Amino acid sequence: MNETIQTLLAHQSIRKFKEQPLTEEMIQTLVQSAQAASTSSYQQVYSIIGIEDPAIKKELATLAGNQTYVEKNGYFFVFCLDYHRHQLIATMAGTNIDDTVQSKEAFMVGTIDVSLAAQNLAIAAESLGLGIVYIGGLRNNLEAVSSLLECPDHVVPLFGMAVGYPDATPGLKPRLPKEAVFHVNGYKKDEEALPVLEAFEQTTATYYKERTGGERQEGWAKQMARVMETPNRLYMKEFIESKGLDKK
Amino acid sequence: MNETIQTLLAHQSIRKFKEQPLTEEMIQTLVQSAQAASTSSYQQVYSIIGIEDPAIKKELATLAGNQTYVEKNGYFFVFCLDYHRHQLIATMAGTNIDDTVQSKEAFMVGTIDVSLAAQNLAIAAESLGLGIVYIGGLRNNLEAVSSLLECPDHVVPLFGMAVGYPDATPGLKPRLPKEAVFHVNGYKKDEEALPVLEAFEQTTATYYKERTGGERQEGWAKQMARVMETPNRLYMKEFIESKGLDKK
Repeated sequence: MNETIQTLLAHQSIRKFKEQPLTEEMIQTLVQSAQAASTSSYQQVYSIIGIEDPAIKKELATLAGNQTYVEKNGYFFVFCLDYHRHQLIATMAGTNIDDTVQSKEAFMVGTIDVSLAAQNLAIAAESLGLGIVYIGGLRNNLEAVSSLLECPDHVVPLFGMAVGYPDATPGLKPRLPKEAVFHVNGYKKDEEALPVLEAFEQTTATYYKERTGGERQEGWAKQMARVMETPNRLYMKEFIESKGLDKK
Repeated sequence: MNETIQTLLAHQSIRKFKEQPLTEEMIQTLVQSAQAASTSSYQQVYSIIGIEDPAIKKELATLAGNQTYVEKNGYFFVFCLDYHRHQLIATMAGTNIDDTVQSKEAFMVGTIDVSLAAQNLAIAAESLGLGIVYIGGLRNNLEAVSSLLECPDHVVPLFGMAVGYPDATPGLKPRLPKEAVFHVNGYKKDEEALPVLEAFEQTTATYYKERTGGERQEGWAKQMARVMETPNRLYMKEFIESKGLDKK
């Protein structure tokens, strides 16, 4: 197993960082790594906002639901889906790209592009001995985040990422068994999937029991069924459309 | 610069593969690497379908717009957003998660989850000396792809990925200058971005000119403005909603 695959398999989300900031050179390398990812039809539908102002970090931490690691880390990145650049270009070229930009296809392309770039950044960081955690909590209030970061129309922050020197090692979190997520030639029948999911329920119940000293006993399936019963961020559809995206 | 970052920065999409298939062990390692990626709230909203039946590969190649490298490669993966598993679990637990699954937030979470897993797989492959190319062309006709792969409701193939031993090296494709995609503390003003985009227009015009022996002369901005004038895959919104996703 090579170094890169070792890095991938060793991933754990880090939520406690030392006070040491990233160097300029590191930030440069991370962004360059992000940009090297594949991008749909060469569109490069993303912007990355580095947050260096402590007041903005603090505000983002509050908006993300008081997550201290959004404020306290080596560096904080916000990853945005971005068609503003394409709109600028189209205006200069005298073409109208509204029907493309407003389509669901474009929203999917953008979300995928942003995520590929972000994951490259994450892996580059981990290969340097840094830890990372994705911050979906920014989506609690995208209106406020967008306004704080002065995002124009056609730009939507999708998530943040805290990066830094780890000050805790939570350990690997078990993933679904390969048999549950990997299918061959076609989607698996439920009869095949169910026993695998049941086995995972035991694995994760044991995992949580050990991690919480017996306090938490539910496994993955029970946790999902409970948490997903309550929908959240239901403002999202209206918000995304208000930014001129994913309308048709 | 370490091995992993070298791998990331050396990425080029490979569209011509040797006839050598991947080994079982490689496929195992690639899927395991995919699963090690971060996942939103531990939801693991993805399935990966490995295509081993030559007839299915051929059919997918046709559906993707006659892309031969969908058929001829070392292995072909289809990456699906997947809430079917969560629906199964919820039914067993007697809870109703429809409002969550049908939300735009869930669709974003799923699209991000799938992409992070896929990019891990891509990097693992490249670290093994394999080449990869993402196949967004599957989205030309998702109804047919879904039906061919027997995907139930709440499962949407987002893209494919051909993996294999490279039989061509197209070279690195220039990316937007860092200054165009990287902002600090807030989104950059257009006045700052425009000169950078103009410089990139020259870079890419030269790149295409050299690669096509002078035949193609437009740069990135002109290409984007031209291609994006014609929207495509406008069936997408209706299709995604018909699968019980992204409805509200």
